[in-house]
Amino acid sequence: MTQRKQLKLGAMLHGVGSSTSLWRHPEIPSDASVNFELYKSWVEKAEAGKFDLAFIADGLYINEKSIPHFLNRFEPITILSALAAVSKHIGLVGTLSTSYSEPFTVARQFGSLDVISGGRAGWNIVTSPLEGSALNYGKKEHPDHDKRYRIATEYLDVTRGLWDSWEDDAFVRDKESGVFFDPAKLHTLNHEGEFFSVKGPLNIARSKQGQPVIFQAGASDVGKDYAAKHADAIFTGHDSVEDAVSFYQDVKRRAVSFGRNPDNVLVFPGIGPIIGSTEEEAERKYQEVVDLVSAENALIYMGRFFEHHDFSQYDLDAPFPELGDLGRNSFQSGTDKIKANAKEKGLTLRQVALQVATPRPIFIGTPEQVADRVQEWFEAGAADGFMVGSSVPRGLEDFIEHVVPILQARGLFRTEYEGDTLRGNLGLPIPANRYAKEAEHA
Amino acid sequence: MTQRKQLKLGAMLHGVGSSTSLWRHPEIPSDASVNFELYKSWVEKAEAGKFDLAFIADGLYINEKSIPHFLNRFEPITILSALAAVSKHIGLVGTLSTSYSEPFTVARQFGSLDVISGGRAGWNIVTSPLEGSALNYGKKEHPDHDKRYRIATEYLDVTRGLWDSWEDDAFVRDKESGVFFDPAKLHTLNHEGEFFSVKGPLNIARSKQGQPVIFQAGASDVGKDYAAKHADAIFTGHDSVEDAVSFYQDVKRRAVSFGRNPDNVLVFPGIGPIIGSTEEEAERKYQEVVDLVSAENALIYMGRFFEHHDFSQYDLDAPFPELGDLGRNSFQSGTDKIKANAKEKGLTLRQVALQVATPRPIFIGTPEQVADRVQEWFEAGAADGFMVGSSVPRGLEDFIEHVVPILQARGLFRTEYEGDTLRGNLGLPIPANRYAKEAEHA
Repeated sequence: MTQRKQLKLGAMLHGVGSSTSLWRHPEIPSDASVNFELYKSWVEKAEAGKFDLAFIADGLYINEKSIPHFLNRFEPITILSALAAVSKHIGLVGTLSTSYSEPFTVARQFGSLDVISGGRAGWNIVTSPLEGSALNYGKKEHPDHDKRYRIATEYLDVTRGLWDSWEDDAFVRDKESGVFFDPAKLHTLNHEGEFFSVKGPLNIARSKQGQPVIFQAGASDVGKDYAAKHADAIFTGHDSVEDAVSFYQDVKRRAVSFGRNPDNVLVFPGIGPIIGSTEEEAERKYQEVVDLVSAENALIYMGRFFEHHDFSQYDLDAPFPELGDLGRNSFQSGTDKIKANAKEKGLTLRQVALQVATPRPIFIGTPEQVADRVQEWFEAGAADGFMVGSSVPRGLEDFIEHVVPILQARGLFRTEYEGDTLRGNLGLPIPANRYAKEAEHA
Repeated sequence: MTQRKQLKLGAMLHGVGSSTSLWRHPEIPSDASVNFELYKSWVEKAEAGKFDLAFIADGLYINEKSIPHFLNRFEPITILSALAAVSKHIGLVGTLSTSYSEPFTVARQFGSLDVISGGRAGWNIVTSPLEGSALNYGKKEHPDHDKRYRIATEYLDVTRGLWDSWEDDAFVRDKESGVFFDPAKLHTLNHEGEFFSVKGPLNIARSKQGQPVIFQAGASDVGKDYAAKHADAIFTGHDSVEDAVSFYQDVKRRAVSFGRNPDNVLVFPGIGPIIGSTEEEAERKYQEVVDLVSAENALIYMGRFFEHHDFSQYDLDAPFPELGDLGRNSFQSGTDKIKANAKEKGLTLRQVALQVATPRPIFIGTPEQVADRVQEWFEAGAADGFMVGSSVPRGLEDFIEHVVPILQARGLFRTEYEGDTLRGNLGLPIPANRYAKEAEHA
């Protein structure tokens, strides 16, 4: 009996939301970004819905123009560790920047989270898009886009080497003989590279999933190569199924060109579904959140992608301004897309800003309609799974309660967890210990 | 009615123990250092015993000679965050080094732990005694003792400044007007110092205890000054009540000389009590752990304090060797004491090593006897409280079950938590926000 291929689901936990104004909605707890009980309840709901993972995004720089969620929110390592203690099955994935951290510390923290959670940790590697981050870390300047990826490449290699410090059977713990570990199965990294020099070994062993799952979200050419070469899964975002299919094929092709099995690089578009019991109710929910956004807020929000550019200097109803290379060293692919779309459609600044601030989601409608759209994307080869966020109050909860059962009934999504680790549920192999592998070949 | 002054209690959670050989005892789970369920049960027991705090120590360098607990253990930020989710009252304190971390990250992680736990976080500041740490962080050399303290001073100032980024009433969250926060109550640090340059603001606000509680354990002159000037509490260790009283008076005097109220610098000697239903049972328990230690292991263990010096080159039964300054840049006060004691008593290398590896505890005997000793030290002015570790199997549990009720019956220890934060239970004031204070004076 062949089993139908099943999709994967992740929950984006995002406090008061990733928009400028969602917090103003009457149904949003306005302290959501620092409310542990709420995060806990989201994870419990996502786990009841058999989601593969919960995800915590991050950033390292704010100023008075940052969106509410960014101003005051949980740090990923801490909130994920806390959530590990109150969940059993769901994966716990967080963003951490390779541009402003030390591989020994990060390998330890994700390694420790992985052991605490029984093999459910994941790390979304970012290289930090915002110039301001440098100012919080005593750096004179933010490294440029390509250099950040060179750093990230060496960084991940160091981290993986540290994770493999102890072979899986290194700890003998024989009370009789007094042998705690087998010295032949302890490996000292001795890394000396362009950016890092790290001796090792790491003071925590591998979890039962071997190593934390590596996520990546780069959308530039360099970013896609990085993801295709190194990541287990890719977070992405698309405005149409055609774009999503083309991205999907692109990264899978890149993975093959790097000698990898493309099934081991999962692609997760992010969606912010709006679900109503009728189409009209869903449309009304969307309109409610659009109505919360002022043009002023929308300009500030969009400015974030363009190195905090001050858009208030332009006429709101004149054509979108010419910006040259602005934004290319922070959010390269996103800002390129905004500029191209404005030009192509001849949009005004106001139109572009409002669209950027509250884009109309493609996944909107009744539960059946949203499930149809999910199935359409999945079967078209646009996605291995989806990252589900809340762009309206209870957006994630609605999806879990009303769409997941339909996907389950159609055989597209699990009704029970198959694995006992994040890798197990995602269908990803446990990475062999780099030293154990060498021994095998010898 | 005046209430009798009460002592404070902390639990040291230390996996398979801080000795070379305790893991070999039949009653010790040999995976204890990476067993989350065990850590969880310890915290639950300590909370049932109304302990003020649980403490996780740390280190940043291992090699094949490190003691078992150090080889493979939880990283403090992750395990404390996980424990925060499964406890309600107890403080959660962990070690983190100022020599190999970034203040923006550390301020965030402890700040986030503090919010997640509802105001129960504490940070034990260390400057990392071991030379090897530098090798895991790409540094050519470990900074010397005095420079490490200069770094630590600036580091803490930056961290505290970041913690105060948001005044306590900064978040207005007025849905009607759309005002999320009051910009006058957001403060950008703009720190430019000798070692750090950090702009701020921090992207998490203060918890209800204001700032995490600062612990310190320096015992050198520079270390004691640092603690007396900056710390809320001091971890220490002494072989006699006289030494403990003298240390206590010394740091309280130093606190006064820095213009501080000495009651706001709590002194916590560490103890590893051994409790039996009779004196003989307690002695037997001690002998059991002594018998687990080989002379070889004792030499390796002692070597750790002397920059991993190889003591196996000397005759075990000859007088303790002359070591010059060896050890002074790692564990200054500890190694000075070992040398002086060996000289004074004319001990052999074997005698010194076995004493260092399993020192005979002062807090040994029946529950009444141990409670008497606790009371004696407390009333002699040797301690504001104690950090209780396990030097025998169930050492901490025995103390909670058998000694705590006696201390409670004598009115020396709480029967219910008084406060709803770690500061509240420790009787420490909530630090005023540095910016709000300025405004008051203006």
